[in-house]
Amino acid sequence: MIQVAEALNIIAENSFKMPIAKIKVSKSLGYVLAETIYSPINMPPFRQSAMDGYAFTHGNLAQLEVVNIAQAGDFLDDEIKKNQAVRIFTGAFVPDDTDTVVMQEHTRITDNLLEIEKMPAAFANVRAKGEQIKKGELVFDVNTVITPAAIGFLACLGITKIKVYQKPKVAILVTGNELVAAGKKLPKGKIYESNSLMLEAALKTIGINKPTVFKVKDSLKKTISTVESCLANFDVVLISGGISVGDYDYVKEALLENGVTELFYKINQKPGKPLFFGRKENKIVFALPGNPASSLTCFYVYAFPALKKLMGFEAIHLPEMKRKINIDFKNSSGKTLFLKALYEDEKVTVLESQSSAMLNTFSIANGFIVVPHDVTAIKVNEEVVVLPFN
Amino acid sequence: MIQVAEALNIIAENSFKMPIAKIKVSKSLGYVLAETIYSPINMPPFRQSAMDGYAFTHGNLAQLEVVNIAQAGDFLDDEIKKNQAVRIFTGAFVPDDTDTVVMQEHTRITDNLLEIEKMPAAFANVRAKGEQIKKGELVFDVNTVITPAAIGFLACLGITKIKVYQKPKVAILVTGNELVAAGKKLPKGKIYESNSLMLEAALKTIGINKPTVFKVKDSLKKTISTVESCLANFDVVLISGGISVGDYDYVKEALLENGVTELFYKINQKPGKPLFFGRKENKIVFALPGNPASSLTCFYVYAFPALKKLMGFEAIHLPEMKRKINIDFKNSSGKTLFLKALYEDEKVTVLESQSSAMLNTFSIANGFIVVPHDVTAIKVNEEVVVLPFN
Repeated sequence: MIQVAEALNIIAENSFKMPIAKIKVSKSLGYVLAETIYSPINMPPFRQSAMDGYAFTHGNLAQLEVVNIAQAGDFLDDEIKKNQAVRIFTGAFVPDDTDTVVMQEHTRITDNLLEIEKMPAAFANVRAKGEQIKKGELVFDVNTVITPAAIGFLACLGITKIKVYQKPKVAILVTGNELVAAGKKLPKGKIYESNSLMLEAALKTIGINKPTVFKVKDSLKKTISTVESCLANFDVVLISGGISVGDYDYVKEALLENGVTELFYKINQKPGKPLFFGRKENKIVFALPGNPASSLTCFYVYAFPALKKLMGFEAIHLPEMKRKINIDFKNSSGKTLFLKALYEDEKVTVLESQSSAMLNTFSIANGFIVVPHDVTAIKVNEEVVVLPFN
Repeated sequence: MIQVAEALNIIAENSFKMPIAKIKVSKSLGYVLAETIYSPINMPPFRQSAMDGYAFTHGNLAQLEVVNIAQAGDFLDDEIKKNQAVRIFTGAFVPDDTDTVVMQEHTRITDNLLEIEKMPAAFANVRAKGEQIKKGELVFDVNTVITPAAIGFLACLGITKIKVYQKPKVAILVTGNELVAAGKKLPKGKIYESNSLMLEAALKTIGINKPTVFKVKDSLKKTISTVESCLANFDVVLISGGISVGDYDYVKEALLENGVTELFYKINQKPGKPLFFGRKENKIVFALPGNPASSLTCFYVYAFPALKKLMGFEAIHLPEMKRKINIDFKNSSGKTLFLKALYEDEKVTVLESQSSAMLNTFSIANGFIVVPHDVTAIKVNEEVVVLPFN
């Protein structure tokens, strides 16, 4: 049995970035960039009007003849003389022969005669070519996480494909003779299977969609062959149940039989003590406890950082926040506790019902309070570490 | 021109919850419950062993004959006498004639003879029927947000469908003659269109997938007919560009022509001043500024709460956090500023390059610092309001 910190280290050391793939920018939200990107163009690509007004050559003339109109999108390459001006709109190409734009509010127009009532400084209201970014300049460093703004930035530079770390293919393997799919009649002695849907939803929150779900009865032979096929076809295997020491818990045996190296089994924590983490080459396996709340706690604390590492993230753990706890709390267990909690900007509230089978308070929790194994008592308003997850 | 707080109030007052639909629990992540849910079953549905061990009737006998095995999922209804016991595993049905489970670690077994070395208390290690939740008890109140744990909880009670507020159908309407799709050659005077991909990604972060994107040139007639079709087929219309006062900005005219009531136009803020918000019956329209950073700022601050309201959320705004700012900051504009920033647990850093056209720092920002319009100076380490968005 190891401590939480050691388990987290072992996971970080044994999880490797996925191979790189080139994907469409439009599909890249939440991916991590696997290349450094330089701008293929100047942005703006031309001198651009920053205002609705009139483009002209700055000089001494305050009365000019309006000879043309430049709407956004137009390219006007007529010769514009010193005594001439062009009606221009925000975003439009500023004709090469002009250098300044006067706001329409500072002018008076009579037929085609423009009178500049308030002369702007030379070059005013003209965005320089490449003002935002110049051709060849750095857009994003490798390892940048693709946000909506990043997608906008890449698209405005005309970039349509980028290299990213692939997302892992995940298998969820649910074991247990007692499990019946929701919607069916519940025979005596059986319970509804819920962990596969729960883990599928948890994966979705970090952008991993449509894991493949396998269900096996408590049979060593069946468990061995299903694990084999999971290891052959998926990058990550999340197994639910079958990892305790009961005679019918075949998971660990099936993993070892398939050449998975055990990296740890059991963590000094509550809930989620019987967690197994193993690896076969670059494939990783978590055998999560069958109790729903234990299973989801282990997912957030341990599987989450492993998946983030695979996806190429630099910051892989749930961020640690400090909040003031709402009650006195005792920990006589000698284990690290992950308490379901509701945090706000300054304080954090311990929720009722922390049992490992219970999901009701977990459903409305937005984080865990971490009570370290060697801390026996916390006083109300003391600062505690909170890991946010929802 | 109105202030930020007034704009937010008008949006909250004019955004209405979507109609209710019954959907699969497996697809319900991020939806808001539109019904109160009571448990259709007891959970656990039967007395369940909490340990691997032996089930027996508590009494004075410490030597018992093992007559059967109860694996998880089994239903054993043989008669078990006072001097008999059943080998039992975690999660298994505890036979009706027995009341206590002794841990296997506290027993010695010889052939079929069980010797209890450490007698547990009566009823030990047996989870009562309905211990987690009883049939008819409250599962979730109306308006609960569906999290992964909530999906697990519903599924374990055998619930497969729930009533939720539908997600709005969103149209993105991009206007401008100057826009060219990324991937194409860029003629002089044109720029790449990026706002539709950016807004699509931003919608995805709140669970709204696959909005429909329309692109129109700067033509009043085309804009009118496209707006008409958007209002007929979508719940929310996000329009990008075409809302400033230039002669070729037809959006506002097209909206009014289609019977959209203007609820506000222009907010005393930077970036994103020329924001239009309107409504036609229960359909809402945001005409966002064309500049990418302005557009995305307005999306997060204004469209985001409106969409959350439609989806049934009670807490609709970006949560307000307090953080210590990293620099002295002056605001001589008289406007409310939304500064792209990077916050950590205690402090917040103002990012460089706050221009309304620039997306590079926006890409790595995780929140806005709000500088109210009537605040002219902030000192380093002063607490400021931060709105997180990534």
